[in-house]
Amino acid sequence: MSVTAAAGFDASGVAAGLKSTGGLDLALVVNRGPLQNGAAVFTSNRSKANPIIWSQQVIADGTVSAIVLNSGGANCFTGPQGFQVTHATAEAVAELLALSATDVLVCSTGLIGDQLPLSKVLSGVAAAVAGLGDNGEDAARAIMTTDSTPKRSVRAGDGYTIGGMAKGAGMLAPGLATMLVVITTDAALESAQLDAALRCAARVSFDRLDSDGCMSTNDQVSLLASGATGVRPDLDAFTIVLTAVCLDLAQQLQRDAEGASHDIQITVTHAATEDDAVEVGRSVARNNLFKAAIFGNDPNWGRVLAAIGTTDAAFDPYTVDVSMNGVRVCHAGAPDRPRTEVDLTPRSVDVLIDLNSGTFSATIYTSDLTHDYVHENSAYAS
Amino acid sequence: MSVTAAAGFDASGVAAGLKSTGGLDLALVVNRGPLQNGAAVFTSNRSKANPIIWSQQVIADGTVSAIVLNSGGANCFTGPQGFQVTHATAEAVAELLALSATDVLVCSTGLIGDQLPLSKVLSGVAAAVAGLGDNGEDAARAIMTTDSTPKRSVRAGDGYTIGGMAKGAGMLAPGLATMLVVITTDAALESAQLDAALRCAARVSFDRLDSDGCMSTNDQVSLLASGATGVRPDLDAFTIVLTAVCLDLAQQLQRDAEGASHDIQITVTHAATEDDAVEVGRSVARNNLFKAAIFGNDPNWGRVLAAIGTTDAAFDPYTVDVSMNGVRVCHAGAPDRPRTEVDLTPRSVDVLIDLNSGTFSATIYTSDLTHDYVHENSAYAS
Repeated sequence: MSVTAAAGFDASGVAAGLKSTGGLDLALVVNRGPLQNGAAVFTSNRSKANPIIWSQQVIADGTVSAIVLNSGGANCFTGPQGFQVTHATAEAVAELLALSATDVLVCSTGLIGDQLPLSKVLSGVAAAVAGLGDNGEDAARAIMTTDSTPKRSVRAGDGYTIGGMAKGAGMLAPGLATMLVVITTDAALESAQLDAALRCAARVSFDRLDSDGCMSTNDQVSLLASGATGVRPDLDAFTIVLTAVCLDLAQQLQRDAEGASHDIQITVTHAATEDDAVEVGRSVARNNLFKAAIFGNDPNWGRVLAAIGTTDAAFDPYTVDVSMNGVRVCHAGAPDRPRTEVDLTPRSVDVLIDLNSGTFSATIYTSDLTHDYVHENSAYAS
Repeated sequence: MSVTAAAGFDASGVAAGLKSTGGLDLALVVNRGPLQNGAAVFTSNRSKANPIIWSQQVIADGTVSAIVLNSGGANCFTGPQGFQVTHATAEAVAELLALSATDVLVCSTGLIGDQLPLSKVLSGVAAAVAGLGDNGEDAARAIMTTDSTPKRSVRAGDGYTIGGMAKGAGMLAPGLATMLVVITTDAALESAQLDAALRCAARVSFDRLDSDGCMSTNDQVSLLASGATGVRPDLDAFTIVLTAVCLDLAQQLQRDAEGASHDIQITVTHAATEDDAVEVGRSVARNNLFKAAIFGNDPNWGRVLAAIGTTDAAFDPYTVDVSMNGVRVCHAGAPDRPRTEVDLTPRSVDVLIDLNSGTFSATIYTSDLTHDYVHENSAYAS
């Protein structure tokens, strides 16, 4: 179902020949209305792919009629020729569907620095338009790169539905958003409301995912509203349902992170500010030594504290507690329970860091550093 | 030779039983004078090991008579008991050599969060004092942890000598300094001069080394002057020789970085400021995707640009050039020479990033991300 679970949306996923495997690689999502409202958040990487540069213009007026997405090439650092391909893709979608090209978002994902073959993209767009229907599954598959499974999520609100799809398995570290995500709803909300809800939901979901500390050039999370139910939900209630969808998709991305053998939740409590909690959690999530230790089922809490020490967060090294999978291994900055009591064999690992410095908390979602991660990322382009 | 190459220094390295292997694990360096001047730089990690906290007090007056170093335990996050061990170690050295404990620097390295066995340390100190002599080699071996070889360097100045030893193979990412390094000289310089020279030399050597982005809790670089030659060198000339020693030691650390199969030099040119050049180089050096690609001999320059985009440095993505081992693969933010022309099979890899934004440059020294790195760091504590 994914993006076609909400009323008013058609989708398709086709094989345009962009992937060398011949798999599905081009997706199209069309908003049949009556509303064509949209919001989007983008990577904060200053090296932006051509589809990001294009889509930031499209979203400016809050009107989105369609979104076209391709895997098999990031169309990033491909110069004027690459921007031309993005532009021509939007124009082709617009012409075939009698829309304005300036209401068509474009997303690309794949290798940076290679040109996308325009003729294949245009043939793919034609096939995608011809195949439009209740094909959210195909669309979710067509945006996969190194993902092992498609990611989709559907939640029911009070008289309306929110559904979405996502891709992303590596280069997961958000600036504002991360990965490619399309979320649709048949609720009737204005673009500004969608924008507020999306930023709120992304802040505690996609923004808290950090598989490898590497920020993508192509990340885009879009939210499209058709208003097909005519239901005008309370914005706070809508945001809660939307956040559930975003967190579900983010956790699916976490579980499928390249090469990961552990899903790690790092929860920082009693921070002086929420920013402090996020900074501390992220410092641990990005520490290769910690991540390799978890891969080795080694509750090496010293590496947690060494990472925290690199932050500007308010904390006293002598009042910090660290627990791993429920066992407090460090209390007040000194050894507490023996490491041997910690069982890290389950795939899910919970690290609890109590800063004892305030009332705020945050959870960061990350993965371990494994041989498979190194293998997958040393062989990707070849 | 290492730390005993300069006149006026004795050293020793003994097995105190701190390492489970039974190898050398305690080193002592004593300055026989006539001067006992010293300077030191320390990790900027806010989670500081007990020997760092101690040594920062010792160095305050610029007088250093001896330095005692142990491997087999970091003595970090070990609470008041751990600080007691550091203090007692300095006291023992002082008593046996008729010095003041407040002139004895202490360094520790090994696992964070385990107590050092005081009785073994004290027996080791006694043996080290008994074994003092021209034993710089033993001292260099006694500070090794996962290092595969001891690191030492000796350079002759105009009538004086500078020699040093270093350890460090992982958790190499400097704040101010990184790793354990002891450098000695028989030149006659004041502590303030040593401090100025050391900061200047460390800034372009140890501070530019970043094997895995993980900052240690125990890093310390010390420079001790005996004045035994009576030669009072020009400070600039001394700094040049000292910088050569520091860069030699830093590059030995780079070549022995845990699991590395490539030594990577990332040179950033035409930056608006030196800080920009360092920030850009470091962002690439810490990018796991880039590091894994180099392990796979894959000249994936897109990952270089994606990393640069996360910085605040002045640059325009459309005027950046990237060369790898002499082949310009990216020109003005678009593909240039084919990736296939780049030969990454040599161990040494040169990445040249031309920001075209100014006149400053810097080189960062790093390593690739390999299966061996993951293996070594997933099994360290067990």
